[in-house]
Amino acid sequence: MGARVVILGCGFGGLAAAQALRGAPVEVTVIDRANHHLFQPLLYQVATAGLSAPAIAAPIRHILAGQDNVTVLLGDAVRIDLAAREVALADGGRVGYDRLIVATGAANSYFGNDAWARHAPSLKTLEDAFEIRRRILLAFEHAEREADPAARAGWLTFAVIGAGATGVELAGTLAEIARHTLRGEFRHFDPRAARVILVEASDRVLPPYPPELSEKARLQLEQLGVSVWLGRRVTGIDAQGVQLGDDRLAARTVVWAAGVAASPLGATLEVPLDRAGRVVVRPDLSIPGHPEVAVVGDLAALPHHQPPVPGVAPAAKQMGRCAARNIVHALAGRPPERFRYRDYGQLATIGRSAAVAVLGRLELWGYPAWLLWLVAHIYFLISFRNRLVVLLDWAWAYWTFKRYARIVVGPDSRPDA
Amino acid sequence: MGARVVILGCGFGGLAAAQALRGAPVEVTVIDRANHHLFQPLLYQVATAGLSAPAIAAPIRHILAGQDNVTVLLGDAVRIDLAAREVALADGGRVGYDRLIVATGAANSYFGNDAWARHAPSLKTLEDAFEIRRRILLAFEHAEREADPAARAGWLTFAVIGAGATGVELAGTLAEIARHTLRGEFRHFDPRAARVILVEASDRVLPPYPPELSEKARLQLEQLGVSVWLGRRVTGIDAQGVQLGDDRLAARTVVWAAGVAASPLGATLEVPLDRAGRVVVRPDLSIPGHPEVAVVGDLAALPHHQPPVPGVAPAAKQMGRCAARNIVHALAGRPPERFRYRDYGQLATIGRSAAVAVLGRLELWGYPAWLLWLVAHIYFLISFRNRLVVLLDWAWAYWTFKRYARIVVGPDSRPDA
Repeated sequence: MGARVVILGCGFGGLAAAQALRGAPVEVTVIDRANHHLFQPLLYQVATAGLSAPAIAAPIRHILAGQDNVTVLLGDAVRIDLAAREVALADGGRVGYDRLIVATGAANSYFGNDAWARHAPSLKTLEDAFEIRRRILLAFEHAEREADPAARAGWLTFAVIGAGATGVELAGTLAEIARHTLRGEFRHFDPRAARVILVEASDRVLPPYPPELSEKARLQLEQLGVSVWLGRRVTGIDAQGVQLGDDRLAARTVVWAAGVAASPLGATLEVPLDRAGRVVVRPDLSIPGHPEVAVVGDLAALPHHQPPVPGVAPAAKQMGRCAARNIVHALAGRPPERFRYRDYGQLATIGRSAAVAVLGRLELWGYPAWLLWLVAHIYFLISFRNRLVVLLDWAWAYWTFKRYARIVVGPDSRPDA
Repeated sequence: MGARVVILGCGFGGLAAAQALRGAPVEVTVIDRANHHLFQPLLYQVATAGLSAPAIAAPIRHILAGQDNVTVLLGDAVRIDLAAREVALADGGRVGYDRLIVATGAANSYFGNDAWARHAPSLKTLEDAFEIRRRILLAFEHAEREADPAARAGWLTFAVIGAGATGVELAGTLAEIARHTLRGEFRHFDPRAARVILVEASDRVLPPYPPELSEKARLQLEQLGVSVWLGRRVTGIDAQGVQLGDDRLAARTVVWAAGVAASPLGATLEVPLDRAGRVVVRPDLSIPGHPEVAVVGDLAALPHHQPPVPGVAPAAKQMGRCAARNIVHALAGRPPERFRYRDYGQLATIGRSAAVAVLGRLELWGYPAWLLWLVAHIYFLISFRNRLVVLLDWAWAYWTFKRYARIVVGPDSRPDA
């Protein structure tokens, strides 16, 4: 029996690590809170009713079924005991390891204002996506039954906080839903009267991109019908809307896309964290004093790496593979390798035929960038099955402007709704 | 402005009524608790992770968008005020009518044992389907983490109570999941060791079918791996299993498919109900003393009709159309027509290549019956879009034995789990 490798979290980093250990003389245990691996870059499509959940998620144990040295456990890791080399689960279970890869990623952060969460859900899990979908679709239903014009305007105003990739995608898609998808379906108002407002504290959208692409993105958003409010800081969110200093935005639907915080599991390692709560790893992704523990993906901070490693799926995958290789190196008595991020480019979609892309020195926007984004995302979707269905769903949505998954399940959980 | 027609419920009966009023000189308002029309005959496929929810559901307002005389409202009708000709909604709203069609169908009944509901969910809505899917998939996850053989056996035992169409479909599909879908995905047990037990109080499965087809269905179930327990009455259900008189069945997953009760809205009409709580309607589907109110679908009882009208989708559709025609007749000063059920046959699926069918005097079973069932259900699925996706999903599932929608969303709500 080989060394016991435990991988916590089966996002892009954890899954890549597990798959890279295929055939290695180790016993791998993958532990995740969810039963599925999620193709996170398309989660906004589930939230905006363009895709069904199974189109972007696949059971982890199905993906890894053919890999004999992997056991998959559904479990919620809450603490890592470095001295005992054990992981503690929420239900009291404990799992021992010889080598550990921590890949539990990031959660959303409200910058200390956790009371905002119930008024402005954020988008990380399928549960989040269903919650946001429910709120968006029910807002239009409330508007249809609301006789008072001011109250109706509140139901028809959608605020997205934060103009990173997720915020831009959500705002662009929301504008498309209001302008096209719902046309002709309501009798008491015109859905095109709905307002979508993208609020960003900094002075441009998509801050990690070159400034000229940020401006292209802003123009494309405005063309799609999104009002982009730059340099505006949110000071309060309640059931009726958003406070921006002295200004008030009446909006019954608010989505939070402004900040991420590292998974709290990182703090249980008792090693230095950066300001975002991420674990500062050594160049080989291990943690100081514990070469048997590696941290990969959004939970890892690599301050020494230049240029900085972005919090994107390809970076997580590359880290996962590197951590897996370092386990094989260690078992063979070889020294670990340093992690080097290989940048294949950056892509952000905005909406119908609208996107921006950076590929080395090449910058793209508009239809060519969108086409590139589409091809890349279909290609990377995890299985052939999902690729085919997603392609059909998208082709249908593109030609008809209709959105397939406009199904509300569960009660309206909006406070005071 | 034409007469105000209100339709409560947009299942097969309500939707058919609304569509039959296309072009009629009336103002139709359709009120439903859900935003979607559900293709109920395939709901068991969502519960067993074979289809995604949007594949069998479509937004009501999208279906009816092109019909100018229809307004769709999301609302929960709780009372009908015959004197004031108003419908009261749960949120306090009131909607007046000149003509009313009540099509709110049936809910599940635990025969007075409502405490059983939390241990044995039943299948009527998409919420129910997600709940059952979650319990089924999580039971296997619990089994993978359970070291004690007896406790593991409890997680690997699935009891379906009631061998009507829904119970038979669920049991057959569960057996297929255990025998084929999950093969090779677990390390601590063989999913083929899972037991699926179909418990029925009467002496045969599918009681409305001819006895020889019931026997064919039972044999097909046993071949698929289901244990069929006939003539066994459930006397208790708790978190650990099912009590059958003096016998005990340890099963952590129990699904209730044993009884339906009419929608409680029928009782607010203050007219005679039958023993199942259904509204006894006159031959033209109106209620005694109120020709302006019709009841259609599973909520209607037609004791005078011979042979009896079954509680199936075609009957609900035919009633909905009849009630709509009678509104047009009344507006034109013509007498109402009597409802006559036209029987096109009965179909029940059991599992892979297994089904039974009655078409007039023709009886089918096995692969031919299953093929007929497949074609009929794809044909009747509501839109081209859904037909295509469902066909692909099924083709994929049939060839690969894989099930597409094995995604758990939401927490485990099983008591004591």
